Formats: sequence, C-alpha cells, structure tokens
Amino acid sequence: MKTIQLFLFILLSLCWTGCQKENQDQVATEPVAQTDPLPSWNDVASKKAIVDFVTKTTTEGSAGFIPVTDRIACFDNDGTLWSEQPMYFQLAFALDQVKVMAPQHPEWKNKQPFKALLEGDLRTALAGGEKALVEIIMVTHSGMTTEAFEKSVSDWVATAVHPKTGKHYNEMIFQPMIELLNYLRANGYKTFIVSGGGVDFMRPWVEQAYGIPRDQVVGSSIKVKYEVKEDGTPQIIKLPELNFIDDKEGKPVGIHQYIGKRPVFAAGNSDGDYAMLQWTTTATGYPRFGMIVHHTDSVREWAYDRASHIGKLEKGLDDAAKYNWQLVDMKSDWKKVYPFND
Amino acid sequence: MKTIQLFLFILLSLCWTGCQKENQDQVATEPVAQTDPLPSWNDVASKKAIVDFVTKTTTEGSAGFIPVTDRIACFDNDGTLWSEQPMYFQLAFALDQVKVMAPQHPEWKNKQPFKALLEGDLRTALAGGEKALVEIIMVTHSGMTTEAFEKSVSDWVATAVHPKTGKHYNEMIFQPMIELLNYLRANGYKTFIVSGGGVDFMRPWVEQAYGIPRDQVVGSSIKVKYEVKEDGTPQIIKLPELNFIDDKEGKPVGIHQYIGKRPVFAAGNSDGDYAMLQWTTTATGYPRFGMIVHHTDSVREWAYDRASHIGKLEKGLDDAAKYNWQLVDMKSDWKKVYPFND
Repeated sequence: MKTIQLFLFILLSLCWTGCQKENQDQVATEPVAQTDPLPSWNDVASKKAIVDFVTKTTTEGSAGFIPVTDRIACFDNDGTLWSEQPMYFQLAFALDQVKVMAPQHPEWKNKQPFKALLEGDLRTALAGGEKALVEIIMVTHSGMTTEAFEKSVSDWVATAVHPKTGKHYNEMIFQPMIELLNYLRANGYKTFIVSGGGVDFMRPWVEQAYGIPRDQVVGSSIKVKYEVKEDGTPQIIKLPELNFIDDKEGKPVGIHQYIGKRPVFAAGNSDGDYAMLQWTTTATGYPRFGMIVHHTDSVREWAYDRASHIGKLEKGLDDAAKYNWQLVDMKSDWKKVYPFND
Repeated sequence: MKTIQLFLFILLSLCWTGCQKENQDQVATEPVAQTDPLPSWNDVASKKAIVDFVTKTTTEGSAGFIPVTDRIACFDNDGTLWSEQPMYFQLAFALDQVKVMAPQHPEWKNKQPFKALLEGDLRTALAGGEKALVEIIMVTHSGMTTEAFEKSVSDWVATAVHPKTGKHYNEMIFQPMIELLNYLRANGYKTFIVSGGGVDFMRPWVEQAYGIPRDQVVGSSIKVKYEVKEDGTPQIIKLPELNFIDDKEGKPVGIHQYIGKRPVFAAGNSDGDYAMLQWTTTATGYPRFGMIVHHTDSVREWAYDRASHIGKLEKGLDDAAKYNWQLVDMKSDWKKVYPFND
C-alpha cells in the first residue's frame, strides 16, 4: 500500500534537464550583429535578468564567468516547459491508455474504476479516490516491456488532443521557454529536465519538443527488471514498484544521483521545485539563477498559484524575494505562450 | 544486514558510460589526410573491427549508418578503462580513508577492524570477513555531506599511489581505451561509463581522466538525503543505505534508468559486463559492437580471467563467439598499456 501511495504521488506531483555545445569561443570573440535570442519575451525585468546572467557567466574575464563544464541548467517540466491543466498530462495519458488496453481486458466491463472510465464517466471512475487512481496508473505503467510502454506513449502523443485547445499535448509547450533552452545551449549550457513526471513518459518525445536528449532527463521512475526470454531475447520489464520520486526534496537528490553536479540555473513553477531552486541558488562561487514561471494568464493559458491543487505555488512566492528568484509573469512577460499562437 | 551485504557487493563487484560532438558532417564530407586515431593499438583484428564499425556507422548512405543521437557507447570502468588489481581501487581508497579519518575516531585504536588497519596489518583487519569490510566501507562512504565525500576522493586521487607501479591511481588508465573514447567522440558518439563502482567515487576524477562529464557516469550508489541546516544552508548527506547496484543484470537496468536508450557500443572485461554486452548487441536495427578487454599481460599489467576473484571472466569468454563480441588481447593488441609507459 505504501508503494501504491507513492505511485499515486508520482502523478499527483508531476515536474526537466539537456545538451551542451561548446561555443563559448563564439561568445568570447568579437561580437557580431545578433538577432534577439528571446523574441517571445517582452522587454521586461525577467528577460533582462536572463540576458544579463547569461552574458555575465559566459564572458571570459568577467567576475561571474562560469566554465562550460559547470554550466548546468535544470528545468522542471509540468507547468514550466508545458501546461499542466486541467490535469497533469501524464494522468490524461493514463486515462486514455485504459481505453487502448480495454480489448485485452474484457473483465474491465464489470470492474471499477475501469467500467466507468470506459463509459466515459470520469467522475464515477475517480470517485474511488486514491485507490482507483492507483489502479489506473498501475495497469497503464507497469507489467510490460520498456519498448511496449514507449510505443504506447508515442502513439498517445501522436494522436491525443487536449480538451481545451484541441492541440496535441506536445504542442502545448511554452515558446518562450523553448527559446530560453536554445539560448542557454547556444551559450554552452547543458540543459536538463528535472521533473516529478515519469522519466519513461517523457523520454519518447522531449528530444523533439525541447532539444533535450533522453539521458538528460531526470524524473520519477518505477523499478525495472532485466530478463532473457526462453528464445534468448533479452528484455526490460517495468515493475509495479516505485524506484524514485523526483519531487520536492527529491529534486536535489535526483540532481545529485543523476547529474552529479550542482546546477547554476534552475527553473520551476510550483512548490515541488522549491528545494531544487534552493539547492541551486544558495551555492557559493559562481553566480546562480532561479526562475519561477508564475501562471497568471487565464486567457492564453491558466491562472493559478496558492490555492491550486495542481502546481500549487505558495512557499515559492513567499520566499522568491529572499532568495532572489526571478518571477516570470506569464501574462505580462510573454508575448506568446504556445508555438501555435499567432 | 541485507543492506550491509549489498553494500559489500558494491566493492566486491566494481565495473562505465560519455560526450557527444555533432561532427557527423565532418565525417560525411570530403575525407582529409588523417593520422591514426588509435596509435597505441597494434594493427590486428580488434583495431580493424573498431575502425570498420565506426566508419560504417558514421558514413552517411552506408547501410549501417547510425544518426548521431543514437550513437550511445557504454564503458565499464574497473578492468576496462583502468586497472583493478590487486584490489579494486575503490577498496584501496576505503582502506586509506580509515587512516585519514582516524584522528576523529580515537575509539578505533581499540576496535577491530580499525585497530589492525591503523597498525598496517591488513590481514588481521580483513580476517573479520564481510562484516569487517562492510564496517570499513560504511564509515568511509556515508555519514558525511556529498561535498565532504568528494573532497576525500579528490585528496586520495591526488596523493595515494599504487603498491606495484608507484603511480597515482588515475594514471593507471589504459592509453588504448582513452584513444578509443576520443575516437568515438570525434565521430559523434556520446560516451558513458556504466560501472559497478560507486558513482560518487568516480565523478570527481573521470572527466579529467577520460573526458567523460559527470552526468554521463552511471554507477552504484547509496541513498542520499537533502536537508536544510539550522543556519539555512542546504546540504546533501550520504546515508548508509544502498540505492542501486550497477552490476550484472543491474547494468542494463542502469542504462535504462539513467541513459534511457539502448547502446550501440559496449565495452567490458568481466562477467559483470555480460548482461550489458548482451543487451547492447542483441538489439535489432543498427549495427552493434561488443568488446571484451582480456587481461593477458602479466608483465605490463596483470593476467587473469576464469579463475580470478576480481574481474572474473568465464561466461564472457564462453559466449564471445556466439554474440560476436570482439576480444581484445591486452598483451598482443596493445602497444602501450598506461599513458606513462614508453
């Protein structure tokens, strides 16, 4: 039951990390006429702070210069690089996946929460609370090979659409953040995802969406087992047992275990990112940058913070000034939210 | 006691993974006069097989072409990238570390196995078997911050010398393997360490030794905990509890959890690498390369395989032909073993 509760926690507290190009020389040499690297950002304090930080840390001879090997930037995913409303997108995947798997499970026609889900009655399905949710997650995320799970995610990303926008979920990524990732990489930063979301759920699509390679994704995970089939073919099976929850205090832990270096740049949007931001920005030596994406745009995206069940942001708002974390006001700081916006 | 036994296992079964440069274009364009990328390799079958594989997989239009993003190469460490005799170097670190820590532990003067160790009597110290060894490992690898542990490793690497060669341990790396790592990276391969050794023990020195960044090191680990001290300073503490054993069937598991992509190239030297080699070379699609460094040189290094307690190689030798794994005969294939050799 402990495992089950932890499993639930994965989906109830979803949250990235990247590539490094050694073009430091380019920065250090004669400046050339440059186009704006962050065109979807309004000319406000947050944009200026980002550009100042990157300029300072990549200008050789500057007091704040950071060698390329230490330019580690960590990004939360849900709510920071893509939307997370009205439910974490990985939960939407799990609910949809029940329908895909139904033909192999005739018994679900008479078994809750699957019966209700298959009848399109989400309210009844989730009335079973945590237990129902965990059952849904269990059957959709374990008991198959890693390859089979990857295919299920890729199929879903290619076909499912978001109930509000009608867009594919991987289109609901934040254009200003994509520009920020590219800008950092163009300046020698290695970008990572450090997310509460499932690592196996993110890897199939993040490279294309964000330009972040699969090995630079840190996330929550369940255990897996290597085995050789009777015909001699090896496979890796996903087990219904928690391995690691990459959220809250788990984020600095994940950064240590998977990246092994303290970041100089971190971006998040909820209190699940508080510890990551704190770990990043309280280190001595180099300059550090902490950023919080504040969801303030009820028209183009969603507006929520302190009272929200998803992506709750309270401690982060209270302590942003104390830690000098840069608040990014989505409504006023971003010209554009999604790539598909005009 | 389970944890303790597993802990022991870390040191009793030590075993790597890298960087990616997108110079695929360079390979695809007009060939230029090239110096030998593997000068410390004799012109024998193993060298030819490596060069053929790299050429085939990086020549655009070739049937075996592999896109840069899929050029994942995994290397075991102990016995594959550096020596592992007469004991795993991490164990030598642990034994030395007891002496460093002794002033803070006056009680050790009267307590085995520490008393014997401090008197230079290794035989008596290790007479306590597993229990004694585990105690030594526990006190030297946990109960401190990650920063303090890193400093202890760095200090050891800078000062300790090997009993046979008198060289620093990080000088006892294999020159032909360094050339292989560089050759692969120069051809767009991202090189990783996938080792049974402790990841926190490797990270402080592998970037300088092998050119492999810290986040591209997969290894065994103990759990860590994030906490904020009373003065508000956060720290990560190493706990005396096993997190992950990256050996045998654990290697494909580690590759999945940390890298998230099936490698196309793997190199090892012992049966601890068997599953990694099997997982790598039985995949379909791209060409795959499996390599076993065979310790055959009792003069320049050590000669051991089937009967060895450290780096036992039996299944690997038995099945190398079946899986088409390339055996590298250290004595006949390598012109030079260590960088310091003439």
